[in-house]
Amino acid sequence: MRQLLKLFNEIKDDLKIVEQELYQVVQTPDALLTETSVHLLNAGGKRLRPAFCLLGGKFYNYDIKKLLPLAVALELIHMASLVHDDVVDASMTRRGMPTVKAKWGNRISVHVGDYLFAKSLILISSYKEPLITRVLSDTSVKMSEGEIQQISTSFNVNQYLKDYFYRIKRKTALLISASCQLGAVACGAPKEIYLPLNRYGHYIGMAFQITDDILDMVANKNKLGKPIGGDLRQGIITLPVIYALEKSPRKERLRDLIVKEVKSDKEVYEAIEIIKKSGGIKYSFDIADKYIHKARIHLAKLPDNTIKSTLNLAAEFIKVRKF
Amino acid sequence: MRQLLKLFNEIKDDLKIVEQELYQVVQTPDALLTETSVHLLNAGGKRLRPAFCLLGGKFYNYDIKKLLPLAVALELIHMASLVHDDVVDASMTRRGMPTVKAKWGNRISVHVGDYLFAKSLILISSYKEPLITRVLSDTSVKMSEGEIQQISTSFNVNQYLKDYFYRIKRKTALLISASCQLGAVACGAPKEIYLPLNRYGHYIGMAFQITDDILDMVANKNKLGKPIGGDLRQGIITLPVIYALEKSPRKERLRDLIVKEVKSDKEVYEAIEIIKKSGGIKYSFDIADKYIHKARIHLAKLPDNTIKSTLNLAAEFIKVRKF
Repeated sequence: MRQLLKLFNEIKDDLKIVEQELYQVVQTPDALLTETSVHLLNAGGKRLRPAFCLLGGKFYNYDIKKLLPLAVALELIHMASLVHDDVVDASMTRRGMPTVKAKWGNRISVHVGDYLFAKSLILISSYKEPLITRVLSDTSVKMSEGEIQQISTSFNVNQYLKDYFYRIKRKTALLISASCQLGAVACGAPKEIYLPLNRYGHYIGMAFQITDDILDMVANKNKLGKPIGGDLRQGIITLPVIYALEKSPRKERLRDLIVKEVKSDKEVYEAIEIIKKSGGIKYSFDIADKYIHKARIHLAKLPDNTIKSTLNLAAEFIKVRKF
Repeated sequence: MRQLLKLFNEIKDDLKIVEQELYQVVQTPDALLTETSVHLLNAGGKRLRPAFCLLGGKFYNYDIKKLLPLAVALELIHMASLVHDDVVDASMTRRGMPTVKAKWGNRISVHVGDYLFAKSLILISSYKEPLITRVLSDTSVKMSEGEIQQISTSFNVNQYLKDYFYRIKRKTALLISASCQLGAVACGAPKEIYLPLNRYGHYIGMAFQITDDILDMVANKNKLGKPIGGDLRQGIITLPVIYALEKSPRKERLRDLIVKEVKSDKEVYEAIEIIKKSGGIKYSFDIADKYIHKARIHLAKLPDNTIKSTLNLAAEFIKVRKF
């Protein structure tokens, strides 16, 4: 993912300003609140949404002062959604790096998430342009819809492509799309600029989540930073699974494995093998490719400049990333 | 509490419109999301915030069309905070009526809360007046700060008046204050109207939370709808406790009881007896009285009309309510 950030050379210095501002914004007199927020910031993250926001701004009277509150707000919304995703029920465990939940518990997670989200609203309320508020509030509603759908359909093998696309649009694509679009909007860009950016963001967001879901099954465990098959363990039915449940000669066995709410490592690996052999991985890469192609079609509508080349490379990179 | 709503006769019909709109707003294609939201609405609630919002509007060119999105948004923010308060950790249990958490689990609670809150943002973003967005985003940040402080200070006997007032201002008073103020703002009222309403709301909000905290110890269990001493069980140190920890001849014993993370009913009743005998209840009622007095001083600055009398009665009612 560092390679992806290398692509963003034109905004490197301003991303540092965003980073400083993120640490600044979460300071509060409450020690615990500051500690948990700083923990989240230190845990890293690619700051993709601020990056896309700044790149969007580059298409029209770029002004970091106009972009800074928005770029920070986008990352805060993303962080809030991550920390809320960590909230679990008593029966569940989560592997990998310590999360806010693991360190401080569910109740703190929920209120820290609320705090970060509310902080983003203060930043957003500094903009007079109603489109910014409207897009971000719509996106927030839909992000929650996506999360709820993910929970209510977990371990459910009767899912179709439309359910999957409904979910990843809400979970991922909408906020990336908003980031690309609103960066341009914040700088005063007209529709001819911000609409293609919105579509570009939407399609790379979809492709990004599909490759994320593929990598959860095929990535090198060390590069991924967590054990593979996490989605299968949590009962999240992703694109390769939907394909395999339809096409695999061993779909009955796969079905039995998927619905088990507690799976052994061996069962997870067996499910992944069935999915791989079904062609589900290749199918999913092909779908991601189609989205990337669509992203590039919309990008082509924008004026030629170095940023356009960067966004083309970013789209290309999503296809080939390994982690 | 029904008596309180009787006071609000002037806005009875418009409150019904708010109620209908609340049910309308939470409709979504997602069955689970609609079901949980409707469950929350059916669980009742006094709709105090919408009521104060409409009453605020009565002081200046009252227009239900201008007030409706705001009144609904205020209740949604309140509901979101309640459902997030239900999120618990594995070690905790909660008594009383089934909550969203008890019925659907932590993960659903967190995302339903996010959904309701995000829905409120869509409504708020329909207002052009920046003060509305600013006050509500500030209030949301501070509400989270209050919740975090409540968690981080639970079972901690080294708390002072300022910690308590910091918390109840954030947990309760700010949103009631915003409701009173912004109702007037939404109708285009000038500062001379909305500032006294802000202060009135703040002081009755403080008094309201203090009496709530008193009732948690002295109310009739059936009228309260839950066992008494809930705050003590959860380790929340309220005003009567702070007083007793300072003044009671049995403060050492009280301290030992308070810090126990699991208390028997007998221990809860013993703690309440110590607090009552210390004069902590009377002291707290006196503080609530002082806030009510302050609320009335600010109310006096407003033009005389029937709504002003209603708000005076509402302030008076907070003192004498039994549940």
